[in-house]
Amino acid sequence: MAGCCAVLGSFLFEYDTPRIVLIRSRKVGLMNRTVQLLILAYVIGWVFVWEKGYQETDSVVSSVTAKVKGVTTTNTSKLGFRIWDVADYVIPAQEENSVFIMTNMIITMNQTQGLCPEIPDKTTVCETNANCTAGSAGTHSSGVATGRCVSFNGTLKTCEVAAWCPVEDDTEVPNPAFLKAAENFTLLVKNNIWYPKFNFSKRNILPNITSAYLKTCIYDAKTDPFCPIFRLGKIVESAGHSFQDIAVEGGIMGIQIKWDCNLDRAASLCLPRYSFRRLDTRDVDHNVSPGYNFRFAKYYSDPNGTEHRTLIKAYGIRFDIIVFGKAGKFDIIPTMINIGSGLAILGVATVLCDVIVLYCMKKRYYYREKKYKYVEDYEQGLGNEMDQ
Amino acid sequence: MAGCCAVLGSFLFEYDTPRIVLIRSRKVGLMNRTVQLLILAYVIGWVFVWEKGYQETDSVVSSVTAKVKGVTTTNTSKLGFRIWDVADYVIPAQEENSVFIMTNMIITMNQTQGLCPEIPDKTTVCETNANCTAGSAGTHSSGVATGRCVSFNGTLKTCEVAAWCPVEDDTEVPNPAFLKAAENFTLLVKNNIWYPKFNFSKRNILPNITSAYLKTCIYDAKTDPFCPIFRLGKIVESAGHSFQDIAVEGGIMGIQIKWDCNLDRAASLCLPRYSFRRLDTRDVDHNVSPGYNFRFAKYYSDPNGTEHRTLIKAYGIRFDIIVFGKAGKFDIIPTMINIGSGLAILGVATVLCDVIVLYCMKKRYYYREKKYKYVEDYEQGLGNEMDQ
Amino acid sequence: MAGCCAVLGSFLFEYDTPRIVLIRSRKVGLMNRTVQLLILAYVIGWVFVWEKGYQETDSVVSSVTAKVKGVTTTNTSKLGFRIWDVADYVIPAQEENSVFIMTNMIITMNQTQGLCPEIPDKTTVCETNANCTAGSAGTHSSGVATGRCVSFNGTLKTCEVAAWCPVEDDTEVPNPAFLKAAENFTLLVKNNIWYPKFNFSKRNILPNITSAYLKTCIYDAKTDPFCPIFRLGKIVESAGHSFQDIAVEGGIMGIQIKWDCNLDRAASLCLPRYSFRRLDTRDVDHNVSPGYNFRFAKYYSDPNGTEHRTLIKAYGIRFDIIVFGKAGKFDIIPTMINIGSGLAILGVATVLCDVIVLYCMKKRYYYREKKYKYVEDYEQGLGNEMDQ
Repeated sequence: MAGCCAVLGSFLFEYDTPRIVLIRSRKVGLMNRTVQLLILAYVIGWVFVWEKGYQETDSVVSSVTAKVKGVTTTNTSKLGFRIWDVADYVIPAQEENSVFIMTNMIITMNQTQGLCPEIPDKTTVCETNANCTAGSAGTHSSGVATGRCVSFNGTLKTCEVAAWCPVEDDTEVPNPAFLKAAENFTLLVKNNIWYPKFNFSKRNILPNITSAYLKTCIYDAKTDPFCPIFRLGKIVESAGHSFQDIAVEGGIMGIQIKWDCNLDRAASLCLPRYSFRRLDTRDVDHNVSPGYNFRFAKYYSDPNGTEHRTLIKAYGIRFDIIVFGKAGKFDIIPTMINIGSGLAILGVATVLCDVIVLYCMKKRYYYREKKYKYVEDYEQGLGNEMDQ
Repeated sequence: MAGCCAVLGSFLFEYDTPRIVLIRSRKVGLMNRTVQLLILAYVIGWVFVWEKGYQETDSVVSSVTAKVKGVTTTNTSKLGFRIWDVADYVIPAQEENSVFIMTNMIITMNQTQGLCPEIPDKTTVCETNANCTAGSAGTHSSGVATGRCVSFNGTLKTCEVAAWCPVEDDTEVPNPAFLKAAENFTLLVKNNIWYPKFNFSKRNILPNITSAYLKTCIYDAKTDPFCPIFRLGKIVESAGHSFQDIAVEGGIMGIQIKWDCNLDRAASLCLPRYSFRRLDTRDVDHNVSPGYNFRFAKYYSDPNGTEHRTLIKAYGIRFDIIVFGKAGKFDIIPTMINIGSGLAILGVATVLCDVIVLYCMKKRYYYREKKYKYVEDYEQGLGNEMDQ
Repeated sequence: MAGCCAVLGSFLFEYDTPRIVLIRSRKVGLMNRTVQLLILAYVIGWVFVWEKGYQETDSVVSSVTAKVKGVTTTNTSKLGFRIWDVADYVIPAQEENSVFIMTNMIITMNQTQGLCPEIPDKTTVCETNANCTAGSAGTHSSGVATGRCVSFNGTLKTCEVAAWCPVEDDTEVPNPAFLKAAENFTLLVKNNIWYPKFNFSKRNILPNITSAYLKTCIYDAKTDPFCPIFRLGKIVESAGHSFQDIAVEGGIMGIQIKWDCNLDRAASLCLPRYSFRRLDTRDVDHNVSPGYNFRFAKYYSDPNGTEHRTLIKAYGIRFDIIVFGKAGKFDIIPTMINIGSGLAILGVATVLCDVIVLYCMKKRYYYREKKYKYVEDYEQGLGNEMDQ
């Protein structure tokens, strides 16, 4: 018990500090301070000022709505004069983070369930029934083969299929695009972001933007960088592509909203940055289902109760609104981690200088003698030992 | 070679440890231990216990489905008595992380492609054909102007447009909301989360919840915090808004599910926390397309083959289910990083005490003399040097 | 001023390095080096080589499109012989990160607004009008009760409701699934990823994949791990479930694409890894609305202008494409943090060895005497003090 107290006493009341050799040398001293300065500059300048190592970060939680405006007309032999508005070309009518705008289409009207010849291609052209396998349905066929070979037109025979008839002929995509005027449509993007860790939320419609401005503005990277209304053609152009090209076979455009916020500064400095990128790279070598398209149908009922449909293969541009970013705010944990690491690295200065002083300098033996005290692990060593 | 071996030998068989001055002073000793204790308390208490610095973290990967239940009736002069069920008011029928419930609408029935006068507003009212530009289609117009000025009603003339006729008149939004009874609809949210790094998955329907409970429960922050069925009115109220207000012009509600899990503890303690937030802030000053609405159409075919449609401008509430959270589990890397930083910071105690002992205390010269050994970088310095 | 210069001079031109006791002992020396080696091995081997502690990481930003191919036939008494293609069974026609494929359905044709008896169950069966509450609309009822009790069939009476009539009878789900052939449909997933911090983007259709290969390949974990075309049946199987089981009541399948990229190596080594998981765990005890289904309707207009609809309760599999992953690239900050921590931990070696040398070894008193220099905080202590 008494021994325990003594140990505790010596633990509490003794202060141990390393013994230091202070070498009064201009060369070594300056070198040491220079190395320390460099390390300090790195720790403070780079880690703290540049990379904001003193901040806790959080990823963005976001909510997006998009609204398209615009109306155009087409005049084709098949459909006649026709007007297209938002309800016609946005499919589906609403989505969470994206909006699809139909720019081109292959329309197959008045399809009914029945039997009809396939569109001729190298797998469907036949001469006799023997060329058609009943019941087969290939990945690219429009229906299930009946096994009969029937006349497609005067000169060609193709396998008959049970399908929605007449089957769609999508061999030729209209070029230029059917709704090429979509270039001038506008897209209003409303984005609300939230950093849960800091309970900070903000909208992309900034508080200093007036209602009147919003009614007329169009986003432009230079003149109107905070206008949330985009001209479709401009989006595609900014990404380095041609709207009329992409409109033919469709594609995916990313509207990227970057919210990098330093919450140690004023909230009004936390601003959205828009950028645009095409997300479906079109390589000539990998053109399996290039662009972006999908099929949908409008179903109608005849007075006698039978159903018919209009099948539309819709080509168009899907605008994906991608919101990302990080917010940083001062926090004690990363600060301490970085200070701790910085201090540890500061210790490297001494190690480095020691190497130079003790191994490279002319007077190294003299310095070593001062720094080190040699203790031999032999009883006889005691006598020889010199006091350092 | 022999020299090399000697170096290797001295490297392997020598142990270097700093020489320490042990100052037997109650004041300094206690001070030193106190500073060390504070730093230790910080490192252990804050970094490890509070912020769980010993844990590796992972972000949640989530999958959500939502299902609405409820039916209501309306009785208007335009539509007569009408019943509304899920297939009528949820548009589109399914989405990935959100569900839209129509609460209000402007319905324009029996639209056909044709020519008709625009709805009068300050840009469309005209007196002669000269006021209307043929071919122009403004952002807010319903169609493409023909250039003629025609009679809208007995007193007013407006520009004629080629459009789906009659054009929609959305100047007056029904108030109170058409489907105001949506307040009592219920929303079942099924959420499955996964932490890939720890291969840990869980559902928001907890294992101890019985099927009978799920049939009758309604979420309540106090009484039923784990019931995944929400009354729409309650969601909006919890976010501090009025359902009947938001129902008129629509809006976006966030259902936030927070999964903060400490996987070092039992999996049953990893529980979802629900919170609700309105995502479309409505400022009086920024009311450009306030609330949330979109247009969609139902297409019909007349017996003679011409198409007509019913255009619906749907106002409603989109419920975005936002899942976020972090799971933490013990991992050696962050533990070591934090211990390393802690140790480095612990070294600060010695630096601090040294400053006090060597610069502030009365006996500072005495202590300095003990701690430091001065080595002059001059040959002549050797003789003068005193042993420290 | 002069004092200030002196202080600055001594600060700049003095180099302080700790005084070291060098103990020439094989035992202690080897022990020290071993402990240091272990710590070094940990820091270099584990933190740097294994966990890549020298890398900055970034989370993936992703864009996904999915396209289903396949056609099948059904032959039922209700619908007759019928062909089903993509436009019929994919609802909605396009979504952002998921695709729903209808595999089963309960179809209720020719519904019109009207009055009709409810489907009998324990809450709707009645004997007199007194059993039915006018105006009530339960969560599970199809319409609003009129308060009358009417004949459902010869033997049963149920409450009458104002609803879309006839009301849907979903008590029996078709088994086997209606569109069980969906097992052989294929799903093409196109995924474009981006790491914003490193401005690195890649597609899941790899550059070395030829167009011809893409036309015929089907994903297989062993033989075709980079083919982006999946057979639906195989996806479900890979997750350990039976397609025909899941097809009956529907479900959610996750197609997980993992992009873990080491950007210090060649970009061609950054490859997608596919895995499959069922996201809706089906517990026997928690079968509240098991599987996945939703209702939608197709609206038709009669020649006389009244509207009727076909209500479809669609059961099916929603394929959620979940993209996750981290990219790492060398960065100076995490490297320095880890080196700093490693150095600090290296200091532990000296502490550990000191404990052993000074407290456990036979010659501990001898070593202690060499390491420590005791300084008494008493004036009288000065005389007694021996030079260490």
